[in-house]
Amino acid sequence: MDKIRELIGKTGVLDSAAMDAARVRQNRLTKPQGSLGILESLSMKVAGITGNPTPELKHRVIITMAGDHGIATEGVSAYPREVTAQMVYNFLNGGAAINVLARHVGARVVVVDMGVAEDIKVKTGIFVNKKIGYGTASISKGGAMSYEYAIRSIEAGIEVLEDELVKGLDIVGIGDMGIGNTTPSSAITAFVTGKPVEEVTGRGTGLDDTGLKRKIELVKRALAVNKPDRNDAIDILAKLGGFEIGGMAGVMLAAAAHRVPAVIDGFISGAAALIACELNPRLKDYLIASHMSVESGHQAILDYIGLTPLLDLKMRLGEGTGAALGISIVDASCKILREMATFEEAGVSDREER
Amino acid sequence: MDKIRELIGKTGVLDSAAMDAARVRQNRLTKPQGSLGILESLSMKVAGITGNPTPELKHRVIITMAGDHGIATEGVSAYPREVTAQMVYNFLNGGAAINVLARHVGARVVVVDMGVAEDIKVKTGIFVNKKIGYGTASISKGGAMSYEYAIRSIEAGIEVLEDELVKGLDIVGIGDMGIGNTTPSSAITAFVTGKPVEEVTGRGTGLDDTGLKRKIELVKRALAVNKPDRNDAIDILAKLGGFEIGGMAGVMLAAAAHRVPAVIDGFISGAAALIACELNPRLKDYLIASHMSVESGHQAILDYIGLTPLLDLKMRLGEGTGAALGISIVDASCKILREMATFEEAGVSDREER
Repeated sequence: MDKIRELIGKTGVLDSAAMDAARVRQNRLTKPQGSLGILESLSMKVAGITGNPTPELKHRVIITMAGDHGIATEGVSAYPREVTAQMVYNFLNGGAAINVLARHVGARVVVVDMGVAEDIKVKTGIFVNKKIGYGTASISKGGAMSYEYAIRSIEAGIEVLEDELVKGLDIVGIGDMGIGNTTPSSAITAFVTGKPVEEVTGRGTGLDDTGLKRKIELVKRALAVNKPDRNDAIDILAKLGGFEIGGMAGVMLAAAAHRVPAVIDGFISGAAALIACELNPRLKDYLIASHMSVESGHQAILDYIGLTPLLDLKMRLGEGTGAALGISIVDASCKILREMATFEEAGVSDREER
Repeated sequence: MDKIRELIGKTGVLDSAAMDAARVRQNRLTKPQGSLGILESLSMKVAGITGNPTPELKHRVIITMAGDHGIATEGVSAYPREVTAQMVYNFLNGGAAINVLARHVGARVVVVDMGVAEDIKVKTGIFVNKKIGYGTASISKGGAMSYEYAIRSIEAGIEVLEDELVKGLDIVGIGDMGIGNTTPSSAITAFVTGKPVEEVTGRGTGLDDTGLKRKIELVKRALAVNKPDRNDAIDILAKLGGFEIGGMAGVMLAAAAHRVPAVIDGFISGAAALIACELNPRLKDYLIASHMSVESGHQAILDYIGLTPLLDLKMRLGEGTGAALGISIVDASCKILREMATFEEAGVSDREER
């Protein structure tokens, strides 16, 4: 826990001098002020995060964290539980959606086993083993993991981010893989935001009406059985969470402490962001919401944290796929700020009234 | 006109066999069906346009067409008219937003002088001269151009697209530059869609309230003075249009005839799309709307044609900037379709009920 506390203590405020310099430059570029909308404000946010008035995002990384969930055997997913491990192999072989979209945006993928129910045997250079356990316990019957494991999962996420920092890291996207993991995410979302369970529990990978009803009941039971301490985010994670959810929270906390913009994906990484923002309220300034997921509950998360998503492409896959596309938009915003000519440089007349 | 008619006659329907094959493959990829939302439907549309069940968008081109407008001297823009030519030079020097975003998405830019009010003296390899005239006449006093010039502007657009086709062209983005060109675009939009002038006339590059009121009056006057023939899109273009608007309509018509996906930008290329869709109702199937512009009136255009924009980043710059970002999303959708592993290939279990 000391490691987490120390890291949070290191997290600074946004660099207002860098943001001011970025704003001044943005307003001298050859376009009407504000005409690039969100690209302009986004570039200023990245300037504030990085402390660089013209940030350059050379090293782009997507960290995809995998874990299994005890609840998955209780009929909350359209897919069998072994798919978590199978998809990890798919990631390692480069055949999954996240591999395709990461290549598309020039990002490298890091695949982390945070708690898959079986050992991952085929390993490649992009694999990191941080296994905390072989899947969580079912949250409908008790806590997902011990308090100590919750701390370790966050610490593991911090280690993963810091290892990537050494290799070069200018922006990080955060994604998940874990059959059944919308259920703990709904439980966390309902508990932290105070929204009704029905409103923040969705169909995941494709539940029918009966499955959705069962899932809602299980989320309610998880909240009733576990009664987490509202003032202790580690306890919320331990009782309702998942190993990959803790890991993602750790990645986010470490990104902020090291002034790296952290692009969150959909509902699951959103639930991790809820945990992480409870631990460090300053974290929000370092997060960028990539897209609005179709999964109900995601809106509640973004509203609660206070983030506006960049994209709305009706996606609900996870893995970091939305984060990858979001990184491309953030990168575009920074290139505009760095590479466009100013009115003076280009010899273009500015507005007449100025 | 024969050239335009012949081209429209050549435009086929979407290739349903390619779309079916794309759909079958999309549903076997290692993700829950539909979980990539718009990326999935978009890839199928591109399959239908290109006739290729796994389309590859190697050669990406953005055609930015520039022209001046007589109405620009009547106080409808926050910028002086000479900025059109100055921005063309900025494009040719690589310093404008469209240059930055085209580089970002791996597209080459083609800058076309369709009717800038002065001769462009510095020319580079990306410059194409199709000048129809030195700016249009003011539409508040009479027609923008002759009927013959309207035909020639569309034909010039066709020529530009066909020249790029020879060099390699898998997807085209279409953008504009022209101080004052939101005014003719509002006039075209009001006339074609039947929406009130107030609803489809916006602030352009940044008009104040007085300027906006004047602009609305001028659009109304343009409609009253010109009375275009509702059944003759060439007449609408001649009376209310601009040289670059005609050129962009030509690019779109030619893209469809040659089965190249055409990604439209914001309000001005939207007005060109209205003209082009009036000439060829089948065109719509070949158009992709990149983004929702802040400029009021753009929504009316997309609703009328029946297109849903991919992005909403509160942009209103033109040049093809939205189209560039849109091309990146289309490219991502095609890569998903081509490059992802299927359940069989990856040894991943599909849903249990299947």
